[in-house]
Amino acid sequence: MKQKKSLSKKRDNEVISALVNLGNTISDEIDRHDPPKMRLSQRGLANIKFDEEANLLRLGDKKSTRSFLNVAHSRKFMQTLLIATKSKEFVSRGKTASIRELYYQLKHTIAGTKENTLEDQSESDPLIVDLEVTLGVLREELHLKADDKGTLIGNLILEDSGDTINCAKLGRSGLAIPSIVEQYNFIEANADYILVIETGAMFDRLVEEKYHLKNNCIMVSTKGQAARGCRRLVNRLHNELKLPVIVFSDGDPWGYYIYSVVKAGSMALAHESHRLGTPESKFVGMTMTDIDTYGLESVTEQLKDVDKKRINELLQYPWFQKKEWKEQLSLMAKKGVRIEQQALASKSLEFVAEEYLPEKIEAGDLLP
Amino acid sequence: MKQKKSLSKKRDNEVISALVNLGNTISDEIDRHDPPKMRLSQRGLANIKFDEEANLLRLGDKKSTRSFLNVAHSRKFMQTLLIATKSKEFVSRGKTASIRELYYQLKHTIAGTKENTLEDQSESDPLIVDLEVTLGVLREELHLKADDKGTLIGNLILEDSGDTINCAKLGRSGLAIPSIVEQYNFIEANADYILVIETGAMFDRLVEEKYHLKNNCIMVSTKGQAARGCRRLVNRLHNELKLPVIVFSDGDPWGYYIYSVVKAGSMALAHESHRLGTPESKFVGMTMTDIDTYGLESVTEQLKDVDKKRINELLQYPWFQKKEWKEQLSLMAKKGVRIEQQALASKSLEFVAEEYLPEKIEAGDLLP
Repeated sequence: MKQKKSLSKKRDNEVISALVNLGNTISDEIDRHDPPKMRLSQRGLANIKFDEEANLLRLGDKKSTRSFLNVAHSRKFMQTLLIATKSKEFVSRGKTASIRELYYQLKHTIAGTKENTLEDQSESDPLIVDLEVTLGVLREELHLKADDKGTLIGNLILEDSGDTINCAKLGRSGLAIPSIVEQYNFIEANADYILVIETGAMFDRLVEEKYHLKNNCIMVSTKGQAARGCRRLVNRLHNELKLPVIVFSDGDPWGYYIYSVVKAGSMALAHESHRLGTPESKFVGMTMTDIDTYGLESVTEQLKDVDKKRINELLQYPWFQKKEWKEQLSLMAKKGVRIEQQALASKSLEFVAEEYLPEKIEAGDLLP
Repeated sequence: MKQKKSLSKKRDNEVISALVNLGNTISDEIDRHDPPKMRLSQRGLANIKFDEEANLLRLGDKKSTRSFLNVAHSRKFMQTLLIATKSKEFVSRGKTASIRELYYQLKHTIAGTKENTLEDQSESDPLIVDLEVTLGVLREELHLKADDKGTLIGNLILEDSGDTINCAKLGRSGLAIPSIVEQYNFIEANADYILVIETGAMFDRLVEEKYHLKNNCIMVSTKGQAARGCRRLVNRLHNELKLPVIVFSDGDPWGYYIYSVVKAGSMALAHESHRLGTPESKFVGMTMTDIDTYGLESVTEQLKDVDKKRINELLQYPWFQKKEWKEQLSLMAKKGVRIEQQALASKSLEFVAEEYLPEKIEAGDLLP
């Protein structure tokens, strides 16, 4: 199956057009002696909605205006245009930059003043998101990148920057998932599903047990909360290869939230949920029910106050209102314990790979 | 160049023998009605020395005794033997386990009592180190593993668990460095040196600039403090392929300490410095001198109190007593600033790859 190349020249040109349009609009306003301004989407919690039908967090349609002649806005206005200009340069030159490099590239003292363009990266980061939202482009499409994290292994052949990589032939090491995966071109996949795993140690266990070979799946380790590159990769694997996504995390509010971010997106990046979230994802474990089913009481851990507080927060989120999740979270609060993926080792090292996962997945014993 | 396989059956058998000897000694003591005991190396700071000649942190020769019939020792004695028994099982079966899985495998209530073998992983972790020191084996050789972190890319062909991996053909992604690298078998390397890079973002920059291809080097990203697997890999690449190691970190006390751990080992793992440290490593930057040389004053950052405190700590360490390092640390304190790798982007995105690194390395402008 030959997939089209995602980080295409075509998309680069679309992004450049969007950036040029933004500049032209402002330039026209100046020519007409109108006050230069930008229309931006509000990004506060008040403008984030849960789209129940799509099972995705979405940004609402509340807008605000950033105006150059408003003294409270003019610094941000200038900074936003600097970022837009620099991004256009990156895309045009086929370069990518970290958001920290962008900050260093733009930081300078404005000629004839003692004013710096930027004092701190905390000034530029939110403006990048403003640009993403306003132009309807991903950060990665502006050729800007966040930190990378995560590993992939399994029966997938992909092309990355001219190299063809067989991800089933990477020993026990696996492919490091970069911060930008738009350049990946999926050549061939022979897998029944994608297994997304919270901890690096559990990923290692399953690699050692050859789980991906015996169960014909592609395994992705998020190593804690999934980075953008990892979430985008799962989204692309699901949508382009039509593979189901199954998530396997610790049985605690933090693990459940990792699942919800892979599935429904995150509040901070609600404007990109459709490209970073995979709403069809299912959850295999660890569930609170597993504790009884598999006799794991002796290897649970007591909830701390911070865990209990987090359970109550999750119970408020609209995307945790499904009855299965309310049941699990209530059961967790009632039992007062959490359970880790690695606690399955108390049965045997092989238990997770030979019994727990294949039996639950075969039986379709998955949460929505 | 064909290297011998490191995680060999032979080494496994040596480790099993050492574990069996430990058990036999104790079993003999019991048969003779002597009190069962173990002789252990002390691991406190008082027993850590800096070996100036080898440029490595070393464990001294102070010993202590753990005795089963001493009520203050008997719990730890029992736990140490449980860990030894389980490790022997792992090595014999060709399995590896995370230190968390080991904890879960051993945790149970002792029959006829209400006493658990282990209450918390903080009980088992230090005893693993006791076993490593006592038996003179690496944790990885006991088939136990810590967390993994780090990425490799460059002109190196290695064999990992039956797969031959060409690390120059992994696109912009690279190989994820696992927690255990003993199984790596280096087949062929065509490189002049190994460049060890602190941040993932700088690694990405150099990959994008094809630095490793243009400068014929193997690049390793530590992503902050180097994990054990990453340190062991650098040690093996240096010793087996005879390649120089050059470290590139942020110009702050934290970056300098990352360098010192790659070079001289760490206090917590002083007993393994010869297998985890690479004393011949050199340091390319960022130095405080770079700030003047390259005109980077405007992209430095003010030191915080915690940075200043850390500078004073480094100035006390015997392995920072070389005059070049005392100069850099004093200059940092005097200037009151730190400088990041990514601040080089203020010159141009390409500056680090096209001028800074090649010029400094070519000129041999490296710190010891």
